[in-house]
Amino acid sequence: MPPVSERTIEGILFTDQYQLTMAQLYFRMGLHERPAQFEHFFRSYPDYGSHQAGYCISAGLGSLLGWMDTARFGEEEIALLRGQQASGGGRLFHDDFLGWLATHGDFGALTLQAIPEGRVVHPHAPLTVVRGPLAMAQIIETALLNIINYQTLVATKAARIRESGGGQLVLEFGVRRGQGRGAIEGGRAALIGGADFSSDVGVSHALGFQPKGTHAHALIQTFLAMGQTELDAFRAYAELYPDDCTLLVDTINTLESGVPNAITVFEELRRKGHRPVGVRLDSGDLAYLSIQAAKLLDTAGFPDTSIVLSSNLDELIIWQVLTQIREEGARYGVDAERVIKRLVFGVGTRLITSWGAPALGGVYKLMALQHQGAWSPAIKVSDSAEKTPNPGNKRVWRIYDRRENASADLLALEDERPDQLDRIVLRHPSDPTKSRVIRRGEISSIEPLLVEVQHAGRRVYEQPTIEQMRELRRADVARLDPGVKRLVNPHVYHVSLSQQLWDLKQTLVAQVRD
Amino acid sequence: MPPVSERTIEGILFTDQYQLTMAQLYFRMGLHERPAQFEHFFRSYPDYGSHQAGYCISAGLGSLLGWMDTARFGEEEIALLRGQQASGGGRLFHDDFLGWLATHGDFGALTLQAIPEGRVVHPHAPLTVVRGPLAMAQIIETALLNIINYQTLVATKAARIRESGGGQLVLEFGVRRGQGRGAIEGGRAALIGGADFSSDVGVSHALGFQPKGTHAHALIQTFLAMGQTELDAFRAYAELYPDDCTLLVDTINTLESGVPNAITVFEELRRKGHRPVGVRLDSGDLAYLSIQAAKLLDTAGFPDTSIVLSSNLDELIIWQVLTQIREEGARYGVDAERVIKRLVFGVGTRLITSWGAPALGGVYKLMALQHQGAWSPAIKVSDSAEKTPNPGNKRVWRIYDRRENASADLLALEDERPDQLDRIVLRHPSDPTKSRVIRRGEISSIEPLLVEVQHAGRRVYEQPTIEQMRELRRADVARLDPGVKRLVNPHVYHVSLSQQLWDLKQTLVAQVRD
Repeated sequence: MPPVSERTIEGILFTDQYQLTMAQLYFRMGLHERPAQFEHFFRSYPDYGSHQAGYCISAGLGSLLGWMDTARFGEEEIALLRGQQASGGGRLFHDDFLGWLATHGDFGALTLQAIPEGRVVHPHAPLTVVRGPLAMAQIIETALLNIINYQTLVATKAARIRESGGGQLVLEFGVRRGQGRGAIEGGRAALIGGADFSSDVGVSHALGFQPKGTHAHALIQTFLAMGQTELDAFRAYAELYPDDCTLLVDTINTLESGVPNAITVFEELRRKGHRPVGVRLDSGDLAYLSIQAAKLLDTAGFPDTSIVLSSNLDELIIWQVLTQIREEGARYGVDAERVIKRLVFGVGTRLITSWGAPALGGVYKLMALQHQGAWSPAIKVSDSAEKTPNPGNKRVWRIYDRRENASADLLALEDERPDQLDRIVLRHPSDPTKSRVIRRGEISSIEPLLVEVQHAGRRVYEQPTIEQMRELRRADVARLDPGVKRLVNPHVYHVSLSQQLWDLKQTLVAQVRD
Repeated sequence: MPPVSERTIEGILFTDQYQLTMAQLYFRMGLHERPAQFEHFFRSYPDYGSHQAGYCISAGLGSLLGWMDTARFGEEEIALLRGQQASGGGRLFHDDFLGWLATHGDFGALTLQAIPEGRVVHPHAPLTVVRGPLAMAQIIETALLNIINYQTLVATKAARIRESGGGQLVLEFGVRRGQGRGAIEGGRAALIGGADFSSDVGVSHALGFQPKGTHAHALIQTFLAMGQTELDAFRAYAELYPDDCTLLVDTINTLESGVPNAITVFEELRRKGHRPVGVRLDSGDLAYLSIQAAKLLDTAGFPDTSIVLSSNLDELIIWQVLTQIREEGARYGVDAERVIKRLVFGVGTRLITSWGAPALGGVYKLMALQHQGAWSPAIKVSDSAEKTPNPGNKRVWRIYDRRENASADLLALEDERPDQLDRIVLRHPSDPTKSRVIRRGEISSIEPLLVEVQHAGRRVYEQPTIEQMRELRRADVARLDPGVKRLVNPHVYHVSLSQQLWDLKQTLVAQVRD
């Protein structure tokens, strides 16, 4: 057997073994082309331990569509499956099934609905709905979960970081700390969710951004090892990059060496007609050092140069740094808000890995199956009522209150039209005692969130640009209640069931329990 | 500009922008081919919050070597860099530098030493040492850190899970919960570090393993949606996979429905001459359910069928499950050790993401530079003594005590031969008051850990198989003190400096501080 190509590992065999054994069973029973509907949703927001998300940002759909376009059972894949042995002897996968995979083993027959990338999303509401032949709708599960869960996780973290940074520039610096090539997908998600730029050269070029960066300690060390100085290193860097000159000032001593040397070089740049960009602080008390560096730069006549902060930043640390600058600025004679307005956040490890909550935990559940010519809803009863999925073919509606803030997401059955009702009943998804009623007059608008992306294999969706996704994100985040956006212990956004969906769920649970 | 290919994003442009701007600066100063030495090491073990690692397992080198073989600045890469603009107008990267990259922009001139995959490794000791032309030795940093840090992290987690599971079979189930395609590299690392098999079809085939799996809840739901039963689903599965029949028993009710139905099917299999494999428990109190399922299976005459556990397992949860079985087994009339001997651990999210510590934080630091015909050691003084790297060209030695347990790792300068000394001084890396002396008679052996992998571009290393890496891991873990392997609050393994290295470090720090 020749070595397995990277393309094959990342193609349709980027899946769990059980998808294939189940698909063969469906094939054996003649169910493999039976129309089925699966939904992908997550059950809870990322909980980072000391802080918690109150909303998520959808991301990953574009990557999933790219994967679906090329993933199929080709000759190499079929040959590998043919080589798998059953424990009792003989082959695990049989020729008739492999023959079907060779001709039907792609995603060309699926219908896909999804909430577009960049939108605010909440637990229990489907992010993606897959309808199509049971076998292929089953096989797509693993890649779909992998791609959309992780990117949604990182986009969410990026949005939180952006919010806590008060809109100051955010640079994604995580490629070295990412989980393998997941860093590439994480870089994309960060750019959707809240990062302005990335240091990742490949990702930036692929998505049409200029990659960003400063320089490393190694540059200064190189000069020192040759008997030269930090100032020599800064000067050389400034000469080559006179209009892109951000200098890392903490190699020796930030306030006694780095910033004064940077100012010397900035003065030389200014005399030559250039505009120095800024300094980067990568260690120490970033709030204190920001204030002191700002003072030194102000005094030297550089009131507008940036101060880039890096070093294990996340939304909580950024919030602490800004709080400390606001509390201590006056004591050092600086205008805290002016210091903050020159900050740039370089965020690495904690963004790209979603530190504290490195997996979203989204699941993919069978919701309905065609049986005797009609859709038969599927149910799975769990040990806890919260984990019992909401059955049937559904739509997700977002209800905006009179201030045009998002007030609740409503899961309803496919044929319901809550936008035409005078009175909408919102049932809690698992607690039978909790419900509320919203009347027409309390609502500014009701919007369906799922859009059709692929219809029976035909792509019916124009892939938006990253900038368009960012616009969706900005608009959605702006329409969230401030309590939902709180970094720590956020207010719980309501995701509710329609009365009809609630009734269906109770009926099915009772049937299974009988 | 045509779209950027996936190959390009994952190739040499899988790097940080600042590597390229620094490389151009080295080029401009004529330093780009100056021999330099960088070291990659991590500063602390993964700390999962409620538990902490006391050792790591090295992994990722094979993937790094594969990347190095194909990563180079080809036409597409050069064209992308040519398109980058400087802020003041004109191009950021100039033709002379790009011309050099086009002809010298690969890793063919580097010398690489590394600690082989599967070996136990500790903080501050270099996992990889890169020597070669400054520009390319700098550019490799990002990919090297990304690949080796993440795989070492997952191999470490897998080793802990294996240890806490008492050597029972471990299955890696994480592909759906991994961080994008990082799951592929994570699957590889898990197989090195402690997982016996993976559910990832592509990774398993690429590494020569049979992929493993059971089935999902969706299979049962499909039958229920057609008006059939869990028993019908089990029966259909058993008919197709009579010798690979592991049944997921928690879709309806584990003890009242799932296990009894599985037993019915197992009896049918047995009558036909097959041997049922087991059941899988995916929710609820796994210790209690394991005991009860074992009792039911025992009573039915299946004392050897496996009980696969899944559902957010990690080393701490596995340890808790085993403890609870040992404490409660007798009360339910089962032999706890026999229950444990039939357990299999299916571990997903928490292994593939290294939940609690999703990045290793390894760094890559310039240690020495050729200057005026000799190696000049480089230093970076940090705000804390622990973060100041150990300078110079070094070797890592592992010292084994008379019981042949690993006693300490010693960092020494390249020309030192601690294996020929009668008396070895071990200095604490940062605390000047801490040192100890080991005499020859207290030692069974001293072993150098770094091996040469590539010499001036020539590969001088035969890539071991996964099984060979596992043998290294088993041997190294067996030679660790039990206290170092403790799941929670482990004993601190000593990583020490030789007296010569300590003296060099102090001299350099003093020089920089002058």
